[in-house]
Amino acid sequence: MKIAILGGDGFCGWPTTLHLSEAGHEVHIIDNLSRRWIDTELGVQSLTPMDSIQERCRIWREVTGRTIHFHLLDLATDYERLKGWLADHRPDAIVHLAEQRAAPYSMKTDRHKVYTVRNNTGATHNLLAALVETGIDAHLVHLGTMGVYGYSSIGAPIPEGYLDVEIDTPTGKKTQEILYPTRPGSVYHMTKSLDQIMFQFYAQNDGLRITDLHQGIVWGTHTAQTQRHDQLVNRFDYDGDYGTVLNRFLIQAAIGHPLTVHGTGGQTRAFIHIRDSVRCIELALSDAPRAGDRVRIFNQMTETHRVGDLARLVAGLTGAKVANLPNPRKEAAENDLIVKNDQFLALGLEPTTLADGLLEEVVDVARRFAHRIDRSRVPAVSAWTKELGAQVERDPEGRALRSVS
Amino acid sequence: MKIAILGGDGFCGWPTTLHLSEAGHEVHIIDNLSRRWIDTELGVQSLTPMDSIQERCRIWREVTGRTIHFHLLDLATDYERLKGWLADHRPDAIVHLAEQRAAPYSMKTDRHKVYTVRNNTGATHNLLAALVETGIDAHLVHLGTMGVYGYSSIGAPIPEGYLDVEIDTPTGKKTQEILYPTRPGSVYHMTKSLDQIMFQFYAQNDGLRITDLHQGIVWGTHTAQTQRHDQLVNRFDYDGDYGTVLNRFLIQAAIGHPLTVHGTGGQTRAFIHIRDSVRCIELALSDAPRAGDRVRIFNQMTETHRVGDLARLVAGLTGAKVANLPNPRKEAAENDLIVKNDQFLALGLEPTTLADGLLEEVVDVARRFAHRIDRSRVPAVSAWTKELGAQVERDPEGRALRSVS
Ligand SMILES: NC(=O)c1ccc[n+]([C@@H]2O[C@H](COP(=O)([O-])OP(=O)(O)OC[C@H]3O[C@@H](n4cnc5c(N)ncnc54)[C@H](O)[C@@H]3O)[C@@H](O)[C@H]2O)c1
Ligand SMILES: NC(=O)c1ccc[n+]([C@@H]2O[C@H](COP(=O)([O-])OP(=O)(O)OC[C@H]3O[C@@H](n4cnc5c(N)ncnc54)[C@H](O)[C@@H]3O)[C@@H](O)[C@H]2O)c1
Repeated sequence: MKIAILGGDGFCGWPTTLHLSEAGHEVHIIDNLSRRWIDTELGVQSLTPMDSIQERCRIWREVTGRTIHFHLLDLATDYERLKGWLADHRPDAIVHLAEQRAAPYSMKTDRHKVYTVRNNTGATHNLLAALVETGIDAHLVHLGTMGVYGYSSIGAPIPEGYLDVEIDTPTGKKTQEILYPTRPGSVYHMTKSLDQIMFQFYAQNDGLRITDLHQGIVWGTHTAQTQRHDQLVNRFDYDGDYGTVLNRFLIQAAIGHPLTVHGTGGQTRAFIHIRDSVRCIELALSDAPRAGDRVRIFNQMTETHRVGDLARLVAGLTGAKVANLPNPRKEAAENDLIVKNDQFLALGLEPTTLADGLLEEVVDVARRFAHRIDRSRVPAVSAWTKELGAQVERDPEGRALRSVS
Repeated sequence: MKIAILGGDGFCGWPTTLHLSEAGHEVHIIDNLSRRWIDTELGVQSLTPMDSIQERCRIWREVTGRTIHFHLLDLATDYERLKGWLADHRPDAIVHLAEQRAAPYSMKTDRHKVYTVRNNTGATHNLLAALVETGIDAHLVHLGTMGVYGYSSIGAPIPEGYLDVEIDTPTGKKTQEILYPTRPGSVYHMTKSLDQIMFQFYAQNDGLRITDLHQGIVWGTHTAQTQRHDQLVNRFDYDGDYGTVLNRFLIQAAIGHPLTVHGTGGQTRAFIHIRDSVRCIELALSDAPRAGDRVRIFNQMTETHRVGDLARLVAGLTGAKVANLPNPRKEAAENDLIVKNDQFLALGLEPTTLADGLLEEVVDVARRFAHRIDRSRVPAVSAWTKELGAQVERDPEGRALRSVS
């Protein structure tokens, strides 16, 4: 297949690109490299030293003889070039990972809120409009998030995308299928909720074939392909904005920093290893919906854990301490989370779980590159609301001070 | 109160502005005049001769001694100026009507789809982010549409915004309140569905106080205030994009054109007269939610009719013929529509209905300005999908040909 990977320079996109290239597909990365610019803006960098995308593609060809094509294009602002690109290349499938994906970044300031909405909504809608306009019948696989449902739910198991509801009508109760209702807790999560509405419309109105993967928090860093050469290494974010919780704990442990848990640590989250994430995308590509089908929605996760339990797990493994910080998010202090992932299991996914020794692999990465860690960047600082912002103690540069308790 | 009326130069916005000015409020219009530019783009004009906004404001002062302030500002693209304006003026309430509001226009070409999403999503989100950033606790009243729910429903009465659903949990069934699920049928309607998600988020996360008015199709043209001077007349759209169905029938009748009904005419729609629309906005302003309240949602309509019945009503009144055109929209041919509007009735709304003789008033407007009608612009032409587009017979300039049956 000819596959376009939008956001192919990112944390999930790069290993996905390599995996699909190795599987024999013709792979095209489209990326505006905005994520690298955000590193510059925040004054942070990937823990792992990351080459330019052009250099990474060159090395992949050297190592494997396979070509990855790279196209610099901003999906959100350059509709006409996107349309032209699609018309010229006519991909069979499109993996859409090209969004601003950090909840804390999306809540930093009003500028970041506005950027996140423009970028994510713009990228997704431009893509949908251009597919209709060019008449390209590519299967679109989008990465959404489990977090779109919010975490203050009533403990119901989260089904895969849809809910049957009973509605009173003049002729009695009738059952109707609806999108599982969302309760986004950040501007970032809100944009995924907006995406979902756009997918539903374009699938229904224009017969676009769409799979939306509601992914859990990704952890780990290596895949079989990224390990084939030092310079193919995946990016590894550990800062307070982009570093996801488990990776951040492992870094904190590696540098002897206490593991910073927000609030009570009673929040339950869904997780998936990067290897499984890549594999799920491949499985989703292998099983495309037909025109006229509703949007196919999968929960892409393998396990759930309480944040506090994860901290204790990593502390046990590494001897680190646990520190409780005020929670910058407006959310329930404790929640249960039961998630169905029957569809991926049925397609043959064999989950990589936390117990499988891969934690050690990340600890190794963290130790190897410990000298590159900027310690001041480790805890999360964005406050979700003005009042919560005022509660967090800050240093003179506005960074939240550690409050070990 | 100091009230900002976003989109105050439009069809609903202008009479709302005059009504609130006459009621003694300090009224500020914010508008980028994009609707006038769209008239230019489409080569159409309001049936009623419409002065510049500056001139209309001048005349209002001459007639009433009251000042309406006008500010030229694009809400969707000029976030910083919007924020500055809010910080400088600190309004007590904001009426947000500033969106591209024609479903056919939103479906014309990919450019129009992209514009509609950028404009509407941009305007609404910029406003929300700027309110949070400036800390202004204004009551935000937004105009949404009944059409957001789609028209292929199962005949259930549409409640005011929310639905209680039963969800299975490990400890038994629990009831949860959700936003009434939407099924937008055009890109325009889709943007209102996106707005709704953004309102829910900002009300919940930041305590913004928001009322969302899900309005039916507005008909009529005059209000007590617009009638005070010829040059205060409201705009009157009759073209295939912006002319709403009842106003279009009345124009067709006035020029001896057959009344064009799409499909079987079995589609039921909700209606409201412009006088009631203006009055509802005032009622909504008088009853603001408190910080922390969920978004207050009202159905702003007074009656429902089948489109075919309306055509017959107008035909009876005027002697016009009825013509059936292929339906450019992808929707059910027939539907029922039962809408609850208890909240406005409780606040004291006295509905103006179709039988009240106001139809004649519109027929008079139509006759008076019949010489200004461009007949080629009367039927609706945007096709909702590529296949439907191909079915419609077109003249050499791409306009749909009349197919009287
Ligand atoms: N990493 C996770 O834990 C996780 C969890 C759930 C869902 N997801 C989703 O998976 C997708 C990929 O996440 P990631 O962790 O790889 O993020 P990332 O930030 O590392 O990668 C995103 C890539 O998209 C690019 N991009 C952003 N906006 C663009 C635009 N307008 N035009 C072109 N390129 C653009 C960026 O430059 C970057 O290379 C995202 O949609 C994210 O929401 C990630
Ligand atoms: N007219 C109806 O039948 C009807 C029915 C249901 C809901 N509504 C809603 O009511 C609202 C007003 O409708 P209307 O009929 O008065 O429409 P309109 O097009 O006549 O007026 C909209 C006004 O907003 C302005 N505007 C648009 N984008 C803007 C931007 N980015 N910045 C600043 N100004 C901008 C336009 O210039 C115009 O003056 C809309 O939100 C519409 O969706 C209307």
